[in-house]
Amino acid sequence: MTTIQIGGAKIASIAYSFDDVALVPVKRVRDAEDVTLHWKIDAYEFAHPIVMAPMDSVASPATVVEYSRIGGLAVLDLEGLWTRVEDPSEALARVSASSVDGVRRLQELYATPVDPDLMKQRVSELRDAGITVAGALSPQVALQFHDAVIRAGLDIFVIRGTTVSAEHVSQSHESLNLKDFIYELDTPVIVGGVASHKAALHLMRSGAAGVLVGFGGGATHTTRDVLGVRVPMATAVSEVAAARRDYLEESGGRYVQVIADGAMGRSGDMAKALACGADAVMVGSPLARATEAPGKGRHWGREAVHGDLPRGGVAELGTIGSLREIVEGPSHVADGTMNLAGALRKAMATCGYTSVKDFQRCEIIVDRS
Amino acid sequence: MTTIQIGGAKIASIAYSFDDVALVPVKRVRDAEDVTLHWKIDAYEFAHPIVMAPMDSVASPATVVEYSRIGGLAVLDLEGLWTRVEDPSEALARVSASSVDGVRRLQELYATPVDPDLMKQRVSELRDAGITVAGALSPQVALQFHDAVIRAGLDIFVIRGTTVSAEHVSQSHESLNLKDFIYELDTPVIVGGVASHKAALHLMRSGAAGVLVGFGGGATHTTRDVLGVRVPMATAVSEVAAARRDYLEESGGRYVQVIADGAMGRSGDMAKALACGADAVMVGSPLARATEAPGKGRHWGREAVHGDLPRGGVAELGTIGSLREIVEGPSHVADGTMNLAGALRKAMATCGYTSVKDFQRCEIIVDRS
Amino acid sequence: MTTIQIGGAKIASIAYSFDDVALVPVKRVRDAEDVTLHWKIDAYEFAHPIVMAPMDSVASPATVVEYSRIGGLAVLDLEGLWTRVEDPSEALARVSASSVDGVRRLQELYATPVDPDLMKQRVSELRDAGITVAGALSPQVALQFHDAVIRAGLDIFVIRGTTVSAEHVSQSHESLNLKDFIYELDTPVIVGGVASHKAALHLMRSGAAGVLVGFGGGATHTTRDVLGVRVPMATAVSEVAAARRDYLEESGGRYVQVIADGAMGRSGDMAKALACGADAVMVGSPLARATEAPGKGRHWGREAVHGDLPRGGVAELGTIGSLREIVEGPSHVADGTMNLAGALRKAMATCGYTSVKDFQRCEIIVDRS
Amino acid sequence: MTTIQIGGAKIASIAYSFDDVALVPVKRVRDAEDVTLHWKIDAYEFAHPIVMAPMDSVASPATVVEYSRIGGLAVLDLEGLWTRVEDPSEALARVSASSVDGVRRLQELYATPVDPDLMKQRVSELRDAGITVAGALSPQVALQFHDAVIRAGLDIFVIRGTTVSAEHVSQSHESLNLKDFIYELDTPVIVGGVASHKAALHLMRSGAAGVLVGFGGGATHTTRDVLGVRVPMATAVSEVAAARRDYLEESGGRYVQVIADGAMGRSGDMAKALACGADAVMVGSPLARATEAPGKGRHWGREAVHGDLPRGGVAELGTIGSLREIVEGPSHVADGTMNLAGALRKAMATCGYTSVKDFQRCEIIVDRS
Repeated sequence: MTTIQIGGAKIASIAYSFDDVALVPVKRVRDAEDVTLHWKIDAYEFAHPIVMAPMDSVASPATVVEYSRIGGLAVLDLEGLWTRVEDPSEALARVSASSVDGVRRLQELYATPVDPDLMKQRVSELRDAGITVAGALSPQVALQFHDAVIRAGLDIFVIRGTTVSAEHVSQSHESLNLKDFIYELDTPVIVGGVASHKAALHLMRSGAAGVLVGFGGGATHTTRDVLGVRVPMATAVSEVAAARRDYLEESGGRYVQVIADGAMGRSGDMAKALACGADAVMVGSPLARATEAPGKGRHWGREAVHGDLPRGGVAELGTIGSLREIVEGPSHVADGTMNLAGALRKAMATCGYTSVKDFQRCEIIVDRS
Repeated sequence: MTTIQIGGAKIASIAYSFDDVALVPVKRVRDAEDVTLHWKIDAYEFAHPIVMAPMDSVASPATVVEYSRIGGLAVLDLEGLWTRVEDPSEALARVSASSVDGVRRLQELYATPVDPDLMKQRVSELRDAGITVAGALSPQVALQFHDAVIRAGLDIFVIRGTTVSAEHVSQSHESLNLKDFIYELDTPVIVGGVASHKAALHLMRSGAAGVLVGFGGGATHTTRDVLGVRVPMATAVSEVAAARRDYLEESGGRYVQVIADGAMGRSGDMAKALACGADAVMVGSPLARATEAPGKGRHWGREAVHGDLPRGGVAELGTIGSLREIVEGPSHVADGTMNLAGALRKAMATCGYTSVKDFQRCEIIVDRS
Repeated sequence: MTTIQIGGAKIASIAYSFDDVALVPVKRVRDAEDVTLHWKIDAYEFAHPIVMAPMDSVASPATVVEYSRIGGLAVLDLEGLWTRVEDPSEALARVSASSVDGVRRLQELYATPVDPDLMKQRVSELRDAGITVAGALSPQVALQFHDAVIRAGLDIFVIRGTTVSAEHVSQSHESLNLKDFIYELDTPVIVGGVASHKAALHLMRSGAAGVLVGFGGGATHTTRDVLGVRVPMATAVSEVAAARRDYLEESGGRYVQVIADGAMGRSGDMAKALACGADAVMVGSPLARATEAPGKGRHWGREAVHGDLPRGGVAELGTIGSLREIVEGPSHVADGTMNLAGALRKAMATCGYTSVKDFQRCEIIVDRS
Repeated sequence: MTTIQIGGAKIASIAYSFDDVALVPVKRVRDAEDVTLHWKIDAYEFAHPIVMAPMDSVASPATVVEYSRIGGLAVLDLEGLWTRVEDPSEALARVSASSVDGVRRLQELYATPVDPDLMKQRVSELRDAGITVAGALSPQVALQFHDAVIRAGLDIFVIRGTTVSAEHVSQSHESLNLKDFIYELDTPVIVGGVASHKAALHLMRSGAAGVLVGFGGGATHTTRDVLGVRVPMATAVSEVAAARRDYLEESGGRYVQVIADGAMGRSGDMAKALACGADAVMVGSPLARATEAPGKGRHWGREAVHGDLPRGGVAELGTIGSLREIVEGPSHVADGTMNLAGALRKAMATCGYTSVKDFQRCEIIVDRS
């Protein structure tokens, strides 16, 4: 990255968000029908690289099953409402009834502790549905609960926090050493968020099958206001993609999946993420607009429910169609929120590419800098 | 173009839109009356270089004839409503009556297939009016229909799509090879959109008389949201103008007309397009404000009617005067939407130029970068 | 100026507006009471360098006299309403009564031709009031009317157009050759607008006592929308100040006054103009807010009244206090529109300067570039 | 700093505000509980580095005592309403009752002169409460009143103006020579605002214990509009931090506290200030939202009450919780206005730091430049 002097001895890198860049077609145009979106992580294959984020407004046991049936990977939050109460329908109704900025209401609902038995039960339910079962825990509780949920049949284990480093340092309690942790597991692990080349390389060395890129950029996050932390995603994805290449060489051939996570509200953003080097994208808000979504068109992230320092709100998105219509179309809107897979195919074909791996080399421009 | 490192190994060019630049007068001021706007393509001459875009909200058989009579080139969309139904007045009334974001309504109206007999009939009608007849087809159907419409009397054949490359690649059906296609025709061809030096050079080598520069930048397009694709127009026109110069040398004297297409809602934008190197401009929204316009002040593009993945909406522009007043004035508004030709003359005279060809060398500035 | 490649062979300079820059105090603070704002052009001295622009919404014979009495130079538009009709009060009332975007109304009012006898009468009235008499003509009519108005007693002759070059080129009628014209006059001439080093140098060589910098940047102009022409003022003033320095050397000591004209709605903008190298500022909108202003809080420029191609509108500013309060305070608002002279003194003192000439060296910053 | 050519010979530095930058986590994550926010200036220690600004809407004798009890340094304005009238409750009620832009009302209220006896009485009251007593005077009156207030028991003396230079130059009355002044005092002095390396170094050499960085950037200031003066804070803090380092070396070990003052409405801004090199932050608007704040949710600065040239207004912020909740949480909002200390701890831990001194080395990025 280019660096610049802010003042005195303070140097800063210049970073770019998806809004700052755009794709440029310079190659021969291809047919959208010739494009393949197939995505594979470890032994698991999917029809497209759009992953449903582990957020309670999007991923319920029912929508996870439905989303898997239409070809995608969906991740259930194992610390969400479904592992806190047997039937969260009343809790969800209360979010819907509260004022839009309902942080206080969320704090109350999530004050109920997670129930390890419910965790196992949810994993079993998904397993019984015959889908690839993926569940997410935060780094803080991964050590405590991973054994139970993996035994219950988890196929893919996601460790997702605002920032995850390969080694978390604490003076007061036992920390998660990801390297030790991941190597002991048989289950493939996806871990993040991360935003720099160096931190990503450390995570890759821990044995992760995939890394999540990003934090603080989503539709509902206010991490920048509260913590001052932000990493624009076009730069973050490009940096982590470079780490993937370096790790591929140093490991003699281990290819770690780079999954952009957050700040992709429209299909155009997802296309940019792939063009910057991502293998897949994890999205919340686009799927929160599904009629089946548990949030009924409202959307929030886990950072919004923190008891002392919430860093997100409840967004009112509304609903526009079924999960299947949102992913596969046909679309009846022109804003990049419907027929996400179709839009990716069209973007790739227009730019002259037929696979995600090739599309990662797509030319991009910056609007005046 | 200047390039910049986005992150890791990802490099991007820096690109500029018309909003990012402005003209600077540094030469001796000229009289606006001394300015000539005459424009010529192949054997056809026009009083000014403002081309009416092939959009159903702007170009009906009637407005095409009227526009030609006041000196401009007008292009009818040969896949629009007029070649789908005998009398599209009811269809147009339904667009007017629908809510502004009427994408679903457009999808229904354009579900009626195009009728080759109507295509020929429309061309004959225009021919009978004694004007220079220009019609547009998309690259997808150019092979299928070109023979019929050219026999019916087309003078200028426009092939216009979101992106057109000299050679389209498909594994599933026969593709349009522009080089073979254009060389077989006696009719001059204008083809685009295109946005890079390299792609433009390929199109020029196919024998095109003119190339259209741009895509996704117009008043109604949402290509950036849906596909992530955008090329800011000041840079795109400058790049294609450089390709024209290179092709002029390599071909030993074939001068290909560079026609900026889209993102020029005001006369100031058109002046900038010429100053960046365009020979002419193709515009929709400024002419959609004419009282004669079939859209009655509503405006949409063909990308908005796509059945699976619409990439544009219906814009409510309103009407401000006759076609003649919009092009020739007098103007009673101060926002660059009326007396377009007068504004171009005044801009050129103020900057010290009296012909479009000279004006292409006009000095421009970037507002802080 | 720094240049940048827009695309292909097109190069552009990077330019800065007043909004892009700010003053930085780095020297020892001074007392505002120690600051002098005195300004002198030719043999005429003024208490401050804020010049009233020749605009009908601001400068009537009455406000010109009043403004002169409180120490400033005021310029009457000799092609405005006061030289078209004996008593323009009815015309002004009609502007006040029209809708805010009253371009068509202005066009009607200014359709009445200027009356040479009224021109002379207005100059005589101002002369009788015992003030320094300054009047403005456009370059188009300067040859025709200058003799009459100078004989009537004009002290300072202002030639003001959107763009003025030392030599205007026309094939159809006699053009104004400023060099010949100015050298024949005994009266000092202020001429503009101009925006580049080269054009300013040419104007200085014509013998002008002062040059006006800028066009298209004022509160009511839409030159950028209509013509695509714009020169950001911080750059324009800096460029012309450099021309002043070069001409001072080449002429062996002729110091030409640089007067920033337009885009200075607030006292902070005026301070920036001086810090970029201006000797004085010509302003309209800040004085249009005076209770005595003929526009009664509405404001328009001459470019708005053009019969075929108006390039400005009528702005509704409202009134906030007397001319004297606006210039000298005390202020009761905090937005830079009152106590303009006091604000300049405070700005200069804060940055450590006590004269305008020294203040032209003030350090400035660009907000991230 | 990087410099750029504005035009002609005018050169400007490029400066960055807090909004232009963000923190990037690149180190191993730490536990927020391991973070210490302790701050020390001279002999005085505080639980956190968030200083209450001497503004009447925030700091009354009562809130100063309350704020001290929850661990922070609070500064009373010794030229505010509390030293003008015995009981300012009626005056405060009138501000609350006036329209939001109540500059004229403020001018009336502050027309009452300060009363030296009330100054001493307020200091004594604070002293009697057993807290660290800090009071602020402007440079204009520091000479006149410092003796009285220091004798009354001031522990920390704050000299705060829009701009303060080590030596103020006046031809008309005795000026404050800070070097002489500070060396004669036994009481530690905090002085500012200042924004450049050079000016800060001069202030440090005068013997100050701390310098305030910034002016014109706060929630209610309009210094940029009125004076044209602005220094973006990320650059200003970085510049002054470099001066601190240089002075540390030149003085053989005197560490001067750098206190960012203004433009920090959210906890994320405060984190950025520390990351740019500040040791502490002085804030107004975040504490003006306390239910105990004398402004009852309205907020204004001293520059707003100037009789001739007010440079600020009255902001309507509303109240959101107690002083203690705002500083220590728990928070029920997600916008960075509550649990300020908790947010700083979380930001530091996320970026991998456990002390403010280390955190000053935190990596930052610029959003595209």
